[in-house]
Amino acid sequence: MSLPQTPYPTVRLMPKAEARAIRHGFPWVYANELVLDRRTKALPAGALAVLEDAERRPMALVTVNSGSKIAGRVMDADPGAEIDAGWLEARLGTALAHRERLFDAPFYRLVHAEADGLPGLVIDRFGDVAVMQPNAAWADAAAEEIAEALVRVTGAATVILNGTGRARGLEGLEERTEVIRGAAPEAPIPVPMNGATYMADVMGGQKTGLFFDQRPNHAFVAGLARGARVLDIFAHVGGFGLAALAAGAESCLAVDSSAPALDLAGQGAAASGVADRFATRQGDAFDTLAALGAEGARFDVVICDPPAFAPSKQALEAGLRAYERIARMAAPLVERGGYLTLCSCSHAADLSRFRAASARGIGKAGRRGQIVQTGFAGPDHPVLPHLAESGYLKSVTFRL
Amino acid sequence: MSLPQTPYPTVRLMPKAEARAIRHGFPWVYANELVLDRRTKALPAGALAVLEDAERRPMALVTVNSGSKIAGRVMDADPGAEIDAGWLEARLGTALAHRERLFDAPFYRLVHAEADGLPGLVIDRFGDVAVMQPNAAWADAAAEEIAEALVRVTGAATVILNGTGRARGLEGLEERTEVIRGAAPEAPIPVPMNGATYMADVMGGQKTGLFFDQRPNHAFVAGLARGARVLDIFAHVGGFGLAALAAGAESCLAVDSSAPALDLAGQGAAASGVADRFATRQGDAFDTLAALGAEGARFDVVICDPPAFAPSKQALEAGLRAYERIARMAAPLVERGGYLTLCSCSHAADLSRFRAASARGIGKAGRRGQIVQTGFAGPDHPVLPHLAESGYLKSVTFRL
Repeated sequence: MSLPQTPYPTVRLMPKAEARAIRHGFPWVYANELVLDRRTKALPAGALAVLEDAERRPMALVTVNSGSKIAGRVMDADPGAEIDAGWLEARLGTALAHRERLFDAPFYRLVHAEADGLPGLVIDRFGDVAVMQPNAAWADAAAEEIAEALVRVTGAATVILNGTGRARGLEGLEERTEVIRGAAPEAPIPVPMNGATYMADVMGGQKTGLFFDQRPNHAFVAGLARGARVLDIFAHVGGFGLAALAAGAESCLAVDSSAPALDLAGQGAAASGVADRFATRQGDAFDTLAALGAEGARFDVVICDPPAFAPSKQALEAGLRAYERIARMAAPLVERGGYLTLCSCSHAADLSRFRAASARGIGKAGRRGQIVQTGFAGPDHPVLPHLAESGYLKSVTFRL
Repeated sequence: MSLPQTPYPTVRLMPKAEARAIRHGFPWVYANELVLDRRTKALPAGALAVLEDAERRPMALVTVNSGSKIAGRVMDADPGAEIDAGWLEARLGTALAHRERLFDAPFYRLVHAEADGLPGLVIDRFGDVAVMQPNAAWADAAAEEIAEALVRVTGAATVILNGTGRARGLEGLEERTEVIRGAAPEAPIPVPMNGATYMADVMGGQKTGLFFDQRPNHAFVAGLARGARVLDIFAHVGGFGLAALAAGAESCLAVDSSAPALDLAGQGAAASGVADRFATRQGDAFDTLAALGAEGARFDVVICDPPAFAPSKQALEAGLRAYERIARMAAPLVERGGYLTLCSCSHAADLSRFRAASARGIGKAGRRGQIVQTGFAGPDHPVLPHLAESGYLKSVTFRL
């Protein structure tokens, strides 16, 4: 498996296709916009090709996967570009320069797919360990070359390929997880973020082991948490809770259904020197919210950062009801004048709908709130303007 | 002029009015939703009244201004509430507790109107000087009582009433500016924010003398600016530029059409110890962008934070063209890999439209960008969920 060599074959847009959008930077060609003749269908998934418009004028260099709804992804606006080691290194170098400007320590999302000019490719960096998720066929096929370029550009000692998750299935890719450079870390990696230390299990954890996207929202909530009693629902490895404790929270109760995640959170609390103020409760979030409500528990800051309740358009209505229910169950636990941070990582639920569902839930709990902050994914998760509407991560903090 | 005494008169909703929205926290009654009989029309602007629904059930305590499009504003969800010194102090105390949690020093927006339960009233705090903008008739009439409560709750020594701006006209209020407690400051007030010191002219400046709303966006851009050459267009008193210099920018050129604003920016640069890296250029923003383009000037970080180009729905299309033009003229000045921060404080131009206009302008300049951050007004500018769609301030940072 490797990068295809030049000369690249040619593929062509249908006359009805949105050539203008692509010329203006839209990065995708949908399957119904591409002429899927026998020759194009025969191209292996991940092939590189010169995209021509209906009048056979070269438009861009794309990667083709005729089995995916996204049949073409723009690799380079220059149709004459050659995708080789130098090209990969240039893209990685551009991505790296941005992160080095943002962060003092090498713990961040290094590559965020299309927005960083590397379609479907996600790379997170944990010091000298890099975890890549090749969620497009070209990147899966070129994993070796990408790892090689990654080592040259960042000096990473270990490169792990984490080939799991829903996105790969849509591209027709099998699940696989491999160490492709260096040795797998034998213990969780300590990750410094917002004054706390998190433990990332890059081999066995969710996604790449840690969610960097909530960093600025963690920081905002931590800024509210001095002296506060904090409840962190869907705590995972302690994202919001450990940051709040590092910022001086009086206590934090972390709730998650995953025992391994809570164990990592506990290790992070110890590494952050806040273990004496940190407690965990394993269980279903809704059940635990109900139990805490029945116990009459009260907190100054409550955070609910659930998994995507509306992962698709079909799931939108049910998802919004779930967001409303979370808000309705969490609001009574918030002390008067306290804060409730509600998050959504559902593409399908846009900010406006998610906010309305949350406000409805708060209202049904007999409470009213002002919105004091709305945040998105951090700046190491850039978005293309053309795809910005679907910004997946939203974090809204209410004061009740 | 003062607060009306109980018992309050009664006003009534039209049968077609959105009683449900008001019951759920929507804070306004539009003129066409209120029964404007002779008795209601005779109420002085700013009168307090018990709002009843069409079935004469008490719903809330409101302030009435039959001459305004917003004929009623909810003062209290409890129709039996009494608006007196104690009530004012309670609302101010609730607002203060939030700001004291957010900020180490008493420089912030203390009251942000409806969202802080004080309709139409804006109060900014500059240490022991408070500047209030009573933009609703009740607050204008009760300015004395509000100032009294403000002194008791915050210990402010000086209270200035700044009665200027478009909002007052819509309420039928005259322009007036008065010192209603203490003595007017004789010099600009130094304001610490994001590591810089700003100079606020609370008597003669724009709005209340300084814009606190951009604080988190200033901080974000400052975080990108280490070693950078910064261009701050529409610099006012140096909002983005001084924060960038305090964070280690190599240089900052501040452009504004107002000589007094640039003079304050220069004083702020001196007070921040960054005067040697700070330069100003007085002139029209578009003209100056054109001149800098012709000179071949290049910067690592460019910020454009213009006044509202789309202050009303009627002005939307022209406003969006102006935002596009700003982006088109600013983008060529940004070094490759540099950053362009574009802001809008237009209610009428929502995030989606503003972002699209900005991206179009960047594209027409022959550049492409990824969006690395989207920010709104800071957390001392809360919004009600029901009015959140119209969140006025947007700041979008592109990397080009």
